[in-house]
Amino acid sequence: MPNPENDSAWTRLIDRLGRLPGIGKRSAERIAFHLIRQPPEETQTLATALNDLVTDLRVCSECGNLSEADPCAICADTKRDRTTVMVVERPSDIVAIEQLGSYRGLYHVLLGRLAPLDGIGPGEMNTEPLLERIRSSSIDEVVLATTPTLEGDGTALFLMEQLERLGVRVTRLARGMPTGSNFASVSKAVLSDAIQGRTSMNAGQ
Amino acid sequence: MPNPENDSAWTRLIDRLGRLPGIGKRSAERIAFHLIRQPPEETQTLATALNDLVTDLRVCSECGNLSEADPCAICADTKRDRTTVMVVERPSDIVAIEQLGSYRGLYHVLLGRLAPLDGIGPGEMNTEPLLERIRSSSIDEVVLATTPTLEGDGTALFLMEQLERLGVRVTRLARGMPTGSNFASVSKAVLSDAIQGRTSMNAGQ
Repeated sequence: MPNPENDSAWTRLIDRLGRLPGIGKRSAERIAFHLIRQPPEETQTLATALNDLVTDLRVCSECGNLSEADPCAICADTKRDRTTVMVVERPSDIVAIEQLGSYRGLYHVLLGRLAPLDGIGPGEMNTEPLLERIRSSSIDEVVLATTPTLEGDGTALFLMEQLERLGVRVTRLARGMPTGSNFASVSKAVLSDAIQGRTSMNAGQ
Repeated sequence: MPNPENDSAWTRLIDRLGRLPGIGKRSAERIAFHLIRQPPEETQTLATALNDLVTDLRVCSECGNLSEADPCAICADTKRDRTTVMVVERPSDIVAIEQLGSYRGLYHVLLGRLAPLDGIGPGEMNTEPLLERIRSSSIDEVVLATTPTLEGDGTALFLMEQLERLGVRVTRLARGMPTGSNFASVSKAVLSDAIQGRTSMNAGQ
């Protein structure tokens, strides 16, 4: 007869997997089937990655970035421009922008974006701390740098509505044709953005 | 600047989650966002459940059941009827059947079922070991006890085709109206099964 303990290690895993967003009981069971057939090292590596997340990373209490320290190195850097905050969806977005070396303001990481179809609402994002930061600090410009997608745009719109009430200046990243592209390769949406957002070339305008 | 190590703990987890069946890069990131916002204990409990799976459970090399020992207690039990094998999808199905106490044969656990829409093919099930068992042992009846669903039926049909070639008797669990149900509560499919599978009540037929 199956040992009750065995059964509970199995059902415990399925229960735990089923609590993750987007994973129902059926998917959880499928993942458990997959894991039990994999070499044990694969499963252990996943377990280690989960434990590393908890032990190695903190969420910066100021900006929501992932960091070993709290506040993170960017928030703690006194040479940064503390009047500008760029709002991004994920920590890796910061990495990409920091590599440019040109942006000197602070960041705010949403750790998510609105996706109503997936059941992700405002509460699943790091929104309230952003509003609180703006209320209690010297920020005068918020740059919305959500991804240029339907969900990213929806997230930006939602944030815009919240931020407007606080009387802060809100900007968003320019949208247009990517440098190096051509008319044949860009989508209609890109072209349409480029026309709508056309900028004046006359000096002084 | 974000510490490269932090970034790698984060991306490592997303990479590992993305290797699970049915989880793409996008879902993996969403789960990681969820985990980093959860209390650390939640994530650690999941990590522990994964490690427990590997340390506490073995897949029985004979039947595919989950067990602390290999072979499992059922396969090792010399009092079981070794001429009959019941094929089930998951270890918990065995638990349910063993609770009846009436089935005395052996089992074979598929650890999955065919689900072409989810990309789960024959290779993702414990099929070949079943065929090998039948070729090399005294099994004369295989009872297909896959779940009475579209996917379970598809799995049974696939197995039937494989098993027929081995000349073994193949049966499947009866399908019909559940005891205690009534005509108003059962679905058309159930009623249809019950009519199609009607059995003779005349003695001796």
